Amino acid sequence: MQRTANHADSLKSEEFVAPKGNELTVGVDLGGTKIQAAVVDRAGGVLATHRTETDVQGGPSKAVDDIARCVHACAPDLSGIGAVGVGVAGQVDAATGTVRSAPNLGWRDFPLADRLEAALGIPVVVENDVRAITWGVWRHGAGRDIDDLIVLFVGTGVGGGIVSGGQLLTGDRGVAGELGHATLVADGRLCTCGRRGCVEAYTGGWAIAARAREAIEADPDAGQGILDAAGKGDVTAVVVSQAAADGDRLAAKLLEETGRYLGAAVVGLVHALNPRRIVLGGGVVDGNPFLVDAVASAVKADAIPIFADRLDVTGSQLGSQAGVIGSASLARRRLEEGSREGG
Amino acid sequence: MQRTANHADSLKSEEFVAPKGNELTVGVDLGGTKIQAAVVDRAGGVLATHRTETDVQGGPSKAVDDIARCVHACAPDLSGIGAVGVGVAGQVDAATGTVRSAPNLGWRDFPLADRLEAALGIPVVVENDVRAITWGVWRHGAGRDIDDLIVLFVGTGVGGGIVSGGQLLTGDRGVAGELGHATLVADGRLCTCGRRGCVEAYTGGWAIAARAREAIEADPDAGQGILDAAGKGDVTAVVVSQAAADGDRLAAKLLEETGRYLGAAVVGLVHALNPRRIVLGGGVVDGNPFLVDAVASAVKADAIPIFADRLDVTGSQLGSQAGVIGSASLARRRLEEGSREGG
Repeated sequence: MQRTANHADSLKSEEFVAPKGNELTVGVDLGGTKIQAAVVDRAGGVLATHRTETDVQGGPSKAVDDIARCVHACAPDLSGIGAVGVGVAGQVDAATGTVRSAPNLGWRDFPLADRLEAALGIPVVVENDVRAITWGVWRHGAGRDIDDLIVLFVGTGVGGGIVSGGQLLTGDRGVAGELGHATLVADGRLCTCGRRGCVEAYTGGWAIAARAREAIEADPDAGQGILDAAGKGDVTAVVVSQAAADGDRLAAKLLEETGRYLGAAVVGLVHALNPRRIVLGGGVVDGNPFLVDAVASAVKADAIPIFADRLDVTGSQLGSQAGVIGSASLARRRLEEGSREGG
Repeated sequence: MQRTANHADSLKSEEFVAPKGNELTVGVDLGGTKIQAAVVDRAGGVLATHRTETDVQGGPSKAVDDIARCVHACAPDLSGIGAVGVGVAGQVDAATGTVRSAPNLGWRDFPLADRLEAALGIPVVVENDVRAITWGVWRHGAGRDIDDLIVLFVGTGVGGGIVSGGQLLTGDRGVAGELGHATLVADGRLCTCGRRGCVEAYTGGWAIAARAREAIEADPDAGQGILDAAGKGDVTAVVVSQAAADGDRLAAKLLEETGRYLGAAVVGLVHALNPRRIVLGGGVVDGNPFLVDAVASAVKADAIPIFADRLDVTGSQLGSQAGVIGSASLARRRLEEGSREGG
């Protein structure tokens, strides 16, 4: 694809111009609070990055403009960029690049890939954010040497991705990997999806906050430390982590319970899928790194031996760049395989 | 492979002699109570079958003899048989044909494929029984037109198999699909695997019996109908089904709960794997066919719409022959692909 670049842009983007015209891809992480874009090389290295706030009120058309601006800001000359990948928190039809449902953004059935291709003039792939991360972890992160991998990202919500037998599983509609809505407690706590007992309803950031508020209401004296940590703000998962770090017992108990819930969820997934490695990430895990060990201990203690023997549990090794690296590596796959399809 | 067949055997087996020498395969279903073998054609049709009781006390060597006798009884002339497939309830290393652990048989680390090949002189593949059934369902049963399939067999125990993106998932050690030990209730009922809260600990035949006994103890009056149905025998899942069929309210309630537990388990699996179809089978489902509808209703009511929209829930269409047809179709794959591997 040839484009006319003006001289200033050519200068600014000099470092990104690749010999074959598609050595680099751009990854975009589209969330409910921010849009981040990054130029990523073949090895998963981030060369430039740009971020902006998400204007949820502006709707999907405004988001397309903002994403395009974000892409141009970190890659002024697109002639060195082969494709753009976008990860979105929600259900995505990867074959068409349509966002089926993104509750944080308030979107339904929006053809994001088509609109963004029209705006940028280069190929665009769209995937669920954690499926994109899973691809990035498999290509460039903690899963790069293995073919059977489960990625579980625990942030405000909980998302996942599954690589089995060297394939990123997509399922019938391209939405496989919603591990946050696997069953943890039949008829248990109400989830944002409307169902009861999902993994997310116990371990997601919003659920940790809800469990904390309930515990404080049940025992205000025990809850004072968390309330102090919150100050004038709300009780959130971040506040609970801070209180625990400051030695608060209720907060520590809530996080220990979170570890046991995550462990039980992971053991169930291990029995279903027999992975070689579990990769954990997301804000809740990054803020409470002991959760990785808690899950590893649960697997060793509770999983059937042949499933546990050589399984390991680790962080993603991609840090806060996991989203953009994952999306960029999906765009790379598009170039290599010539298909938008996630599977 | 050439063999000298005596005249009598040639006559008896005339109907099985295939033009190319491997048109037929034999499937064996090896369980804790019976060994069943069947000659199966390319279309999944059963041409002959033979069964014998399992001599658990005799150990694995006796079982090899009994399986070989069973195979010869239904296929007297093996020259028309390309390979034998064996399905075993337990963890199997399909790549080597070693039974890692089969609690019903009391086996650990037994090289069944090697021993049976030595006894029969033709290739043998060994797989977990429900993984073999899954392959059979995919090739010849309710899953034959689709590429994303979950098979869940609920008998005394609960087993499963997953086809995703046109691949039978095996996982890292060849034991993926232990859906009976997916998590249903974190910290819930104790399972035979030693862990708490597995799907099997609520829905397996032994668990239905245990739940019935607890309910009878808690309310002996309400439990009288089930005790009457049991007569002088034990309270089993079959007894509960009989009592429910005779109008007993406690039995009906226990089975209705079983349906809700199965539904919650399946909805979780649906979110993790996004299958096109769920295929249910096994003694508990065959004895209580309304469970198929109960699970279908749970999926429609509780699964996220894009996961539920075109998902269906059905029986296996292979009836009581599911085990032997599945094992025989795995043997067929061995012939076609030249590998023992299950994946």
